[in-house]
Amino acid sequence: MNIQYPSVLLENAVNEFAKLPGIGRKTALRLVLHLLRQDVPDVEQFSSAMTTLRKEVKHCRVCHNISDHDICPICSDSRRDETTVCVVENVKEVMVIENTSQFKGMYHVLGGIISPIEGIGPSDLEIESLVNRVAEGRVKEVIFALSTTMEGDTTNFYIYKKLKPYNIKVSMIARGVSIGDEIEYADEVTLGRSIVNRMPFSESYQL
Amino acid sequence: MNIQYPSVLLENAVNEFAKLPGIGRKTALRLVLHLLRQDVPDVEQFSSAMTTLRKEVKHCRVCHNISDHDICPICSDSRRDETTVCVVENVKEVMVIENTSQFKGMYHVLGGIISPIEGIGPSDLEIESLVNRVAEGRVKEVIFALSTTMEGDTTNFYIYKKLKPYNIKVSMIARGVSIGDEIEYADEVTLGRSIVNRMPFSESYQL
Repeated sequence: MNIQYPSVLLENAVNEFAKLPGIGRKTALRLVLHLLRQDVPDVEQFSSAMTTLRKEVKHCRVCHNISDHDICPICSDSRRDETTVCVVENVKEVMVIENTSQFKGMYHVLGGIISPIEGIGPSDLEIESLVNRVAEGRVKEVIFALSTTMEGDTTNFYIYKKLKPYNIKVSMIARGVSIGDEIEYADEVTLGRSIVNRMPFSESYQL
Repeated sequence: MNIQYPSVLLENAVNEFAKLPGIGRKTALRLVLHLLRQDVPDVEQFSSAMTTLRKEVKHCRVCHNISDHDICPICSDSRRDETTVCVVENVKEVMVIENTSQFKGMYHVLGGIISPIEGIGPSDLEIESLVNRVAEGRVKEVIFALSTTMEGDTTNFYIYKKLKPYNIKVSMIARGVSIGDEIEYADEVTLGRSIVNRMPFSESYQL
């Protein structure tokens, strides 16, 4: 439907919403008209929550997860096992894995995976900082929990080689998650078990 | 899924998005993480489009449609037939009807319908201004295009009585739109024909 807007301000707001993934122009219009019915302070609160987050967001100095402080709540929790580090693509995967309650170690958020097509190389990711963490000597095991895609495999191998000199255990979550699926959409039970049933990296690829 | 957020700022932003109709917490998180990956000026542009719209939005002095000026583009278009006024609930219905290209008259946006349950009475709506428009003498026909619900019927009857002294034609869009359906979700063809095939108000309710 090619809607004619009675107002440029309205059209601008709809355009902005429609830039978001999965939001079409009809949905965008519905959301904008909803905001228009709210009080001014409520709309300001909505807008400022987005800009404040974007401007003031910090990343944990250790694991690079989103955090309000220099060190995130997980990294500063002394009850967690600092000898085991789970490597994930993004913040969202940390939340999803935390939600399974199956993992009591630490995380390392790469900020993406190696993808030549999108122009993302190893230096764009938090790989060096992971190697440095391992080099410090307290980490005994690194678990890969990247998406089971070609890009995920490539990233696994790249990091695996970088970590080889340190002689630590490198495992990956069990392939209970179907090949080709994204980690963030896996169901909790499958994802939880795949962490418990992790296997040595070399076995999983039959190296 | 009961997600634990690593950051209060992130949680605030997700909470704000999840207040929007039809946006669950998972979708809200996905949208917020998308915004987080955009550049600061882009996020500011998004936020300011919403607050600017909410703060600077005007309503047409004549028909009460959203407008950037005192008089909206439809009311100031001399090619349109000012003797016919189509009465609608909200801004969205004006856009939907405009899109059918079947109507060349004017509109009158009530800003809602009479709903005792939601505490909306006639004085909360732009009914008096409609009666005043008719009283000026140029309007020859008023077409009701409200939702075919109990509240819509009640509003139709209320306005019909108010307009009776002025001896103009009062019609309503043909009931091609299924009873119980909302105007904004009708398909364009049905809606377009229902405007062309409108019938006298008194006939439609067999008064």
